[in-house]
Amino acid sequence: MTEEGETVMSESSFLYEGKAKKIYPTDDPNVVRVEYKDDATAFNGEKKGSVPGKGELNNRISALLFTYLGKRGIPHHFIRTLSATEQLVKRVNILPVEVVVRNRVAGSLARRLGLKEGSLCPSPLVEFYYKNDERGDPLITEDHIALMELASREQIRQMRERALQVNELLIELMTEKGVDLIDFKLEFGQDENGKLLLADEISPDTCRFWDRGTGKKLDKDRFRHSLGGVEDAYYEIWTRLGGEDRV
Amino acid sequence: MTEEGETVMSESSFLYEGKAKKIYPTDDPNVVRVEYKDDATAFNGEKKGSVPGKGELNNRISALLFTYLGKRGIPHHFIRTLSATEQLVKRVNILPVEVVVRNRVAGSLARRLGLKEGSLCPSPLVEFYYKNDERGDPLITEDHIALMELASREQIRQMRERALQVNELLIELMTEKGVDLIDFKLEFGQDENGKLLLADEISPDTCRFWDRGTGKKLDKDRFRHSLGGVEDAYYEIWTRLGGEDRV
Repeated sequence: MTEEGETVMSESSFLYEGKAKKIYPTDDPNVVRVEYKDDATAFNGEKKGSVPGKGELNNRISALLFTYLGKRGIPHHFIRTLSATEQLVKRVNILPVEVVVRNRVAGSLARRLGLKEGSLCPSPLVEFYYKNDERGDPLITEDHIALMELASREQIRQMRERALQVNELLIELMTEKGVDLIDFKLEFGQDENGKLLLADEISPDTCRFWDRGTGKKLDKDRFRHSLGGVEDAYYEIWTRLGGEDRV
Repeated sequence: MTEEGETVMSESSFLYEGKAKKIYPTDDPNVVRVEYKDDATAFNGEKKGSVPGKGELNNRISALLFTYLGKRGIPHHFIRTLSATEQLVKRVNILPVEVVVRNRVAGSLARRLGLKEGSLCPSPLVEFYYKNDERGDPLITEDHIALMELASREQIRQMRERALQVNELLIELMTEKGVDLIDFKLEFGQDENGKLLLADEISPDTCRFWDRGTGKKLDKDRFRHSLGGVEDAYYEIWTRLGGEDRV
């Protein structure tokens, strides 16, 4: 407890530890503190590592992108940056559904269906995955979501619609910066009033970014496929987005 | 060539050999002869075996079920039975999409999502799978079908609608025979005029049938999980459907 009227951070215990972030409670039951870690995992935890500086870059990139999307009408959880690796966000109940939007074929889509990486999707493809590490986050359909009651039909509709809006907005932003948005993963949560908010993070950990000129991968695929220069790629995204603080 | 006006069967070469059937040409380019084999495979070919009598039972059961569905308005490829293990069907281009309808959780749905086998689906669940052995017949969404141009949006709509009609009709038939229809897989093809026809087979190889009283599996799961009595189970389905020829 302090008397500064500032949200108090408990250093002692976290609410949840994910692969790349830790979530801590604050004095406000509707607000949590997110700490971005340098830890990296891929292929459902089969590959593990650490990328020095990644936590700070993702914290800053995610803050910038949530702010950008919020100004353009997307309701989200982000409140403000606290430090190099920490931000305050609204506490939400994350729906156990990952929403993926794809503009070009890459990653699991290429592998599962035998499609050529880089092929253009005639229209943006929306996919849902069941957030379940034990099952390897399997692809699911809207009917599976309804069967398992992971989200209501109205929430599914909203997630699809917002994901496509986010895609349009991110394409607009990234194209201007010379970056192709190949695909990305979103998570949504419900706040204390049941309102659906864009949550989790938006960063090179959760998006595929390719340099428009050279096709160079500027995202987590550099870690997944041991391409080297992971931190440099994330930093490149940060600077193209106008980031100035040397991190 | 013969002069009987009868469709001539070439014994020499087949057009296609599947896991459980061989397809032969006839003198009529729009008609093929299907030979049902006793061969059985499961888990994408990992398990292989032979079930004496299966070919004959599936040939007869499939003929009976296509005839039943045809009389109730489902357009299909079946023409007539030729022999114990052979039938004539219209030649179609099979769409590389398997359509699965589920009334209760079983098989890959239980495994992929960690759901309890036997749980009732509140409404019938329709799934699409990409017919691609090399990829292990992966689950796909309607958007993937459109992306890969495996079928048109209108064909997807028709396949979903007809699969649900087939489900209603098969439930009606099987319930009367004391059998629960758990799930089934359909394939569709286009005839020479582009008309969508229900094709392939409908048998205990492609449906899950559980005895309503005891829950006993009367289908290919007896082979998949080495439960024994495979041929007896298929014969049980055949006799419950009113089949009389001892096969």
